[in-house]
Amino acid sequence: MKKKSPAINLVVCGSIALDDVETPFGRSKSALGGSAIYASFAASCFAPAGVVSVIGKDFPKSALALLRSRGVDLDGLTVKGKNLRWGGKYEFDMSQAQTLRTDLNSLVDYKPEVPSKYENAKFLFLANIDPVVQKAVARKCPKAFVILDTMNYWIKDHSKALHEVIKLADIVVLNDAEARQLCGEVNLVKAAKKVLHLGPKAVIIKKGEHGALLFSAGGHFSAPGFPLEEVKDPTGAGDSFAGALCGYLSSVSKTDNKTIRKAMIYASAVASFCTEEFSIEKLIKLDKNLIEERYEVFKKIREF
Amino acid sequence: MKKKSPAINLVVCGSIALDDVETPFGRSKSALGGSAIYASFAASCFAPAGVVSVIGKDFPKSALALLRSRGVDLDGLTVKGKNLRWGGKYEFDMSQAQTLRTDLNSLVDYKPEVPSKYENAKFLFLANIDPVVQKAVARKCPKAFVILDTMNYWIKDHSKALHEVIKLADIVVLNDAEARQLCGEVNLVKAAKKVLHLGPKAVIIKKGEHGALLFSAGGHFSAPGFPLEEVKDPTGAGDSFAGALCGYLSSVSKTDNKTIRKAMIYASAVASFCTEEFSIEKLIKLDKNLIEERYEVFKKIREF
Repeated sequence: MKKKSPAINLVVCGSIALDDVETPFGRSKSALGGSAIYASFAASCFAPAGVVSVIGKDFPKSALALLRSRGVDLDGLTVKGKNLRWGGKYEFDMSQAQTLRTDLNSLVDYKPEVPSKYENAKFLFLANIDPVVQKAVARKCPKAFVILDTMNYWIKDHSKALHEVIKLADIVVLNDAEARQLCGEVNLVKAAKKVLHLGPKAVIIKKGEHGALLFSAGGHFSAPGFPLEEVKDPTGAGDSFAGALCGYLSSVSKTDNKTIRKAMIYASAVASFCTEEFSIEKLIKLDKNLIEERYEVFKKIREF
Repeated sequence: MKKKSPAINLVVCGSIALDDVETPFGRSKSALGGSAIYASFAASCFAPAGVVSVIGKDFPKSALALLRSRGVDLDGLTVKGKNLRWGGKYEFDMSQAQTLRTDLNSLVDYKPEVPSKYENAKFLFLANIDPVVQKAVARKCPKAFVILDTMNYWIKDHSKALHEVIKLADIVVLNDAEARQLCGEVNLVKAAKKVLHLGPKAVIIKKGEHGALLFSAGGHFSAPGFPLEEVKDPTGAGDSFAGALCGYLSSVSKTDNKTIRKAMIYASAVASFCTEEFSIEKLIKLDKNLIEERYEVFKKIREF
């Protein structure tokens, strides 16, 4: 008798890429990347996720095995053509990647396939990918609490589709530049209010080394940045932050303001680890103890 | 019989200017400005200060009366020539002033005159001014706990004199760009460590809307930024921060890590008020209640 697949509580939809990254501290070639990779590895520190994404026939089998070993469910993967590839470079200030190449490959005309066992998911993380894909997946998980991320490209050139999916989101996660761009507003407090007017219950603004801000009816929260001396590769830090946030929320099955604050600190801890090595090298070494240790440090650095 | 002047606990040395400032939200003409003005007004929210500075014969008498009404002692003022004038402009992002003019006037060849009643001061704030002036005043207040601020101009062109005065400081206060510039180091944690190697017990890095960081042997602290919707004029926010910090430390006569953390929150509160109106317009309206209210808000935006 075939074993019945267990229902999936947390679904992550996003991209899966093979990245070439260069920073002042080294480089990686054809390394695991993409929003769904970072998010599902980060989430898996707290709760297993099912991934909706597309890979190419050239995507390494060993990477699939690695994902499975973390409890990530891969039944939502489409396999076609060649894999998405991205090449980027960071200068000394490490604040923003300069994209050197993007080969969309299998991402072109990708239609998400959502397994029926995902349809009762309680949490859905729509990581950075075409908002049309995000919307299609959101429609398939109608009971889920939806967390949405995006990037400058979709804000600039796919504004209408993006606004449609924002309406479906419970929490919108953006970095500071994206929040300013989305709202045409320099002041982050005003920008966050404008995003709240679009529908979500909460907005989280990621500020890299400066931490992250929560705006919601439940009150404003400012998560401090972790004082890192060594940042080797910032790629995926934002995706890891949001993935860990969703993983934590899913693990406790709560979404009140106090829980979101705790989730943001766990998310900041995981994101800070992410930047310490290239690709997901550090994420795969994480365990509960390491994360709890950093959580405790976060408590101390904001005490007064 | 002449009344004996009371001893001064806190001395502030810095510049006194008449500023023309233009921001997207308005402009001020010949308004009170300069590091010693902002710092002494901010300090006076907690403790009276004696000011060592120079003004021109054209400096308005009404401003001196205003300073005295806040308990600021003016016996350390030199009066000569025309007053220092500064003109600056902020673009929409309000992050950095573009200097349009600086007329040094009475600041040229200024030799600080430190009244004898200042010589037993327990706290000395060396606000932004020529490091040669700062050093001369520090020598006159040998018992004081010294807090030092500076700016990019002195870091770039007067490095030797600045390093001499850094050696005399207990706390060095810099903004993030200045810390990076002083140490030739992009990473703020590494930059702060380099500053600590120069002698001070603590380094505070001001990051504007992103809050402020404390680095010291007593541990790292991250003070959140206050979520302001309206920033009319950021001029003097950094000087107000440091002035309030010194005022608070002087008022409680303690300098341990825990006290410095509390002082940074009070300093952040006062600095946030400063930016809400032009020049010192908001600072002169502050009272203990308003500051305590904002201090309480800071507690809430940190809680997790």
